[in-house]
Amino acid sequence: MKNTFGSSVSVTIFGESHGTMIGAVLDGIAPGIAVDEEFIAAQMSLRRAAGSISTARHEADNVRIVSGVFNGKTTGTPITFIIENQDTRSRDYGELAYKARPGHADFTASVKYHGYQDFRGGGHFSGRITAGLVAAGAVAISALKEKNIRIGTHILSCAGVRDRGFSGNPAADIDKLADSAFAVLDDSVRDEMISRIEKAKSNGDSVGGRLETAVTGLPAGVGEPWFDTLESVLSHIIFSIPAVKGVEFGDGFALADMTGSQANDPFCSQDGNIATETNHCGGILGGISNGMPIIIRTAIKPTPSIYKEQNTVNLNTSENTTLVINGRHDPAIIHRARVVLDSAVALCLCDQLALRFGTDWLTK
Amino acid sequence: MKNTFGSSVSVTIFGESHGTMIGAVLDGIAPGIAVDEEFIAAQMSLRRAAGSISTARHEADNVRIVSGVFNGKTTGTPITFIIENQDTRSRDYGELAYKARPGHADFTASVKYHGYQDFRGGGHFSGRITAGLVAAGAVAISALKEKNIRIGTHILSCAGVRDRGFSGNPAADIDKLADSAFAVLDDSVRDEMISRIEKAKSNGDSVGGRLETAVTGLPAGVGEPWFDTLESVLSHIIFSIPAVKGVEFGDGFALADMTGSQANDPFCSQDGNIATETNHCGGILGGISNGMPIIIRTAIKPTPSIYKEQNTVNLNTSENTTLVINGRHDPAIIHRARVVLDSAVALCLCDQLALRFGTDWLTK
Amino acid sequence: MKNTFGSSVSVTIFGESHGTMIGAVLDGIAPGIAVDEEFIAAQMSLRRAAGSISTARHEADNVRIVSGVFNGKTTGTPITFIIENQDTRSRDYGELAYKARPGHADFTASVKYHGYQDFRGGGHFSGRITAGLVAAGAVAISALKEKNIRIGTHILSCAGVRDRGFSGNPAADIDKLADSAFAVLDDSVRDEMISRIEKAKSNGDSVGGRLETAVTGLPAGVGEPWFDTLESVLSHIIFSIPAVKGVEFGDGFALADMTGSQANDPFCSQDGNIATETNHCGGILGGISNGMPIIIRTAIKPTPSIYKEQNTVNLNTSENTTLVINGRHDPAIIHRARVVLDSAVALCLCDQLALRFGTDWLTK
Amino acid sequence: MKNTFGSSVSVTIFGESHGTMIGAVLDGIAPGIAVDEEFIAAQMSLRRAAGSISTARHEADNVRIVSGVFNGKTTGTPITFIIENQDTRSRDYGELAYKARPGHADFTASVKYHGYQDFRGGGHFSGRITAGLVAAGAVAISALKEKNIRIGTHILSCAGVRDRGFSGNPAADIDKLADSAFAVLDDSVRDEMISRIEKAKSNGDSVGGRLETAVTGLPAGVGEPWFDTLESVLSHIIFSIPAVKGVEFGDGFALADMTGSQANDPFCSQDGNIATETNHCGGILGGISNGMPIIIRTAIKPTPSIYKEQNTVNLNTSENTTLVINGRHDPAIIHRARVVLDSAVALCLCDQLALRFGTDWLTK
Repeated sequence: MKNTFGSSVSVTIFGESHGTMIGAVLDGIAPGIAVDEEFIAAQMSLRRAAGSISTARHEADNVRIVSGVFNGKTTGTPITFIIENQDTRSRDYGELAYKARPGHADFTASVKYHGYQDFRGGGHFSGRITAGLVAAGAVAISALKEKNIRIGTHILSCAGVRDRGFSGNPAADIDKLADSAFAVLDDSVRDEMISRIEKAKSNGDSVGGRLETAVTGLPAGVGEPWFDTLESVLSHIIFSIPAVKGVEFGDGFALADMTGSQANDPFCSQDGNIATETNHCGGILGGISNGMPIIIRTAIKPTPSIYKEQNTVNLNTSENTTLVINGRHDPAIIHRARVVLDSAVALCLCDQLALRFGTDWLTK
Repeated sequence: MKNTFGSSVSVTIFGESHGTMIGAVLDGIAPGIAVDEEFIAAQMSLRRAAGSISTARHEADNVRIVSGVFNGKTTGTPITFIIENQDTRSRDYGELAYKARPGHADFTASVKYHGYQDFRGGGHFSGRITAGLVAAGAVAISALKEKNIRIGTHILSCAGVRDRGFSGNPAADIDKLADSAFAVLDDSVRDEMISRIEKAKSNGDSVGGRLETAVTGLPAGVGEPWFDTLESVLSHIIFSIPAVKGVEFGDGFALADMTGSQANDPFCSQDGNIATETNHCGGILGGISNGMPIIIRTAIKPTPSIYKEQNTVNLNTSENTTLVINGRHDPAIIHRARVVLDSAVALCLCDQLALRFGTDWLTK
Repeated sequence: MKNTFGSSVSVTIFGESHGTMIGAVLDGIAPGIAVDEEFIAAQMSLRRAAGSISTARHEADNVRIVSGVFNGKTTGTPITFIIENQDTRSRDYGELAYKARPGHADFTASVKYHGYQDFRGGGHFSGRITAGLVAAGAVAISALKEKNIRIGTHILSCAGVRDRGFSGNPAADIDKLADSAFAVLDDSVRDEMISRIEKAKSNGDSVGGRLETAVTGLPAGVGEPWFDTLESVLSHIIFSIPAVKGVEFGDGFALADMTGSQANDPFCSQDGNIATETNHCGGILGGISNGMPIIIRTAIKPTPSIYKEQNTVNLNTSENTTLVINGRHDPAIIHRARVVLDSAVALCLCDQLALRFGTDWLTK
Repeated sequence: MKNTFGSSVSVTIFGESHGTMIGAVLDGIAPGIAVDEEFIAAQMSLRRAAGSISTARHEADNVRIVSGVFNGKTTGTPITFIIENQDTRSRDYGELAYKARPGHADFTASVKYHGYQDFRGGGHFSGRITAGLVAAGAVAISALKEKNIRIGTHILSCAGVRDRGFSGNPAADIDKLADSAFAVLDDSVRDEMISRIEKAKSNGDSVGGRLETAVTGLPAGVGEPWFDTLESVLSHIIFSIPAVKGVEFGDGFALADMTGSQANDPFCSQDGNIATETNHCGGILGGISNGMPIIIRTAIKPTPSIYKEQNTVNLNTSENTTLVINGRHDPAIIHRARVVLDSAVALCLCDQLALRFGTDWLTK
């Protein structure tokens, strides 16, 4: 399978940056879930994140649901979301048909697809394709919320500025993040992050960052020892989001420098439930959820589209050359990517929950 | 699918730490590959890594191949590897039937399997189960080597001591690592790492570390834009290895703090091939290999089995209690895990190559 | 996976009979295949099969390709086909919200989806959903044809009237079938078949029939011994076509009454190739193609929508009741189904060929 | 995936006819199911079916369970069954290394595996490999029985002699079949069937037949509209059993000659449940179980190993030649195959039930 993720609940995405339409098919989601078109539009808007630090391309991103919803609720059969591309300026990309942009998929796509790929605006590799994922993810997020499973992602760091991490009670943090166009937990860092993005933009450059995601309310017992550990399936979908180059759970790479006595989370009895005193493991033990919050951190590389001159190769002649990219680009995508993270995590968890508890578990 | 990974080339693993046998079924590997039983034994030995810094449990780990090999070569049909468990002392684990060990899967397994799981020695969650993966992986490693695709993993850091990273030409580094029982690139750091592991052991504690893996010779054009990016499928299998809590590609999390002009790898023409001047992306662009070395770093948490007293819960009564683990354990697994990494990566790449180029591509 | 079929090449279908749009996503098909929109339209027209013996519902079935095709050729990324529903008369179906139509999925859908399914016109269970399959299948059929792999299906029997079977050289037969609106090999049986369908219609009844499919030019060596035998994967997709209740390969059920000496196909050397003197096995031995024509026969049950009064149950009250179906229906679908068969077989074979020979095999 | 079937509950099989061991890995089956080794042995014995009408090869078929069972119950992790091959006489097969046996997979295997396959006794294509399926299937059958889901298969026809079909109440029929070494519903036909098999044997020939399978107690609502209809997934596994060339559900091919008013099963209210007055559809509507008995008929071709001289080709020289097969063979396998059918159906249904109702549904 290629553009389809998931087993019991699956999502299929399609489209190109400058094609007619992009979209997604969400299949296997339980019947009877209320589909809130306003929430979908709000999520699309968070992903779009128009403004000085985003691309000048303006897409309305009106999502049409053309199947799978009846009387405002999911039917249990495939839900199809389509979004028309409107503001495409393909003439911007002429030279890019043969000059591979560093950091982009132009070269690897040309090898894989023998030059037949739609290269305009990155084609099927474009971050624009995440719009379909966000539309499908909005339904998954709503369905999980009804089961009191909440997901939230914030910008843990951007251009070297660091937000605080999730508190010991991430549910309150998640509430705070919900509608934020530039989601940080510590409001005092926002302006500095934005100012550094603007500075990079004015330099013709771009920045990256780190996202931190928390999931609360996930029941214990979800995931597999092999090979579909919860870390495995979550990282699988997260690493397919463009620009993601690192994923860690709980204390992640920092665990490498700890001792066992520091890293182990002691169990404790709490209101009749079994919990852990700390959460270094990020809510996953042996590949299976332990009922504590799931904590994920994701590295986002800086946007590869920059305005500086770069060395590259002419794919037609294999000769060295230079390239200056024009067109409209994002100096940062981290503020836009966080809703993509939420969506990807929600879709993955809906699949895991359906596999574990059956296809009706999310039905109201 | 649960204990099976891969689509065209797949591996299925089975067994418990204190059960009768553990093993693996490797399916879909191309016919005609020479099966080198000495190499398999050598890999098993590297995984076993007996010595002062490893568990006192001694398993011969004789691998029997009971199907799929005929006249010394793969047939194309499933290859089954079985390994008998010999040195099991299940009496060591009596109390652990109801006291969940912190950092282990005891609690999550009991929720998922309702108490029916084989809890002895961690059962199916034990690192011992990686022995089957290493046996199957040895065949994959050999097959890839015939195609000049080489894989090597070293201990990038352990207990706070850091090895140097791979050089710009990792092929030479990989050669150096091949037979090392404690694989580091800079020989001068080995003793300090081992000494810190021994110190942790004498404290009844344990340590973790970081592994760095390089793959050379992988052709460009392998992987998918969505959802089976090369990062996705590699991280999927890597995150199923016990104790892995973080995975990054190329400069990974460090990319988050770079600008686009620092992070982008300029393309250049090199001996008629297209290469990149730097390799911050770790050989993967848009989810697809670009022909440069694949670089992966993996965080290994400290072994959760420690001898210090720990807080936990009695799973029968849900009451708080304490636990002291006896039995035989590893103060570190990082030196043993590196051959598991090589195996997992090799199995994943064999699958990706068969999907890309067909089921015969590895046939001699 | 539910509404997605295939591994390397996959198709995902969506939509409901009376919804906004139906369609399909074809993923993984090789890049560089010419997409012939006229051929797609012609296939849609064969499926639509307007006339006295088909439903009075008239759908233009204009297929829009909104992704995956660039400069008239496949890009290698998902191709999305959308078709608007235009001639829906949902008021015809009022009573059917709670009275289960015998032979239809109304009851099983209401159990599975707890009443949330779109029941109008059979919703997602409608034969109308095959339109997406035919659109996607048209691209697959074209691609296979370029490799000299040809597929054809004729009406072997209908309402008790029998066509002749494929000749020993089915390639010529396949040519003859290509554009036929009512595909039989022996032209003399067509009128009698149609006349019996019309008679059933005038009785308020319906008829079924048998389809026979031949595939020529498939290379030997495609398929698996277990569990993805060529029969397994072909029957898997064929049995998902509504109304199919039986599938057989070669002499199929008739083999049950033969002896081994009658049933075995002797091998012979033919122009340097190895062939068989007879083809009782339908071109598949041990689950793998042997280079001879693949022969498949499929049983199509009579259309369950009839105008006679039928006994049924009120799903709201669980009381016995009777039902008279109004609305527009097909007295036979066999003449429309044959192009669906061709499409399903083509999609399945593209997947098998890509798995066997790699993702580029169909690239021109 | 190749030698693995199933998604939530899966089975992987391995081994060759004359290899060291054959077996299976059953994964994902619910924890807490009692494993009855006597029942497994009884099923193996029914499959072995020693006697005048079966092969002279005598295998003890002792099944060792080496993982996944703890304290007599399933753990939820992979259950591995191994069976040693004991009575192999590989010298019988010398000439068969290069002369393809008609009706066997020798030729197709040699194309697919380029001559590297283990050709001895049919290797991995041998019916002997079904022994692993029967061992795994026995656990599935036991688990389903605890949920009152019963499966039974009888010889509907053999060598032209016909048994009666299942009655309207197949549960009683299933009881009758359970321990029968030659399973027919009408005892009066058994001797004639056996006598015709013996006659074929004395002629150096072989016979085929039809199997009919019933499943009772399956809840309504299991299966999918597309592409995993219950017919699709059942036929997928059934068509992977060697010698199967046709599968039909309910009245199957006979439905092709019926009218809609004859074929539709009227619904009726029965003891508060919704049932159908007839069962022409074999318990499946729209790909989903309707709560009535599932009825499947399967065509088994005559055993291809016969003692008569046959035309074939020398695979080394591509020249025409003749072949006389010696060795030990079955003049019929139909009486042995029926327990393989039960096993395959049980494994498939366990998967479908786990997908529908969650992984614990079968847990006691």
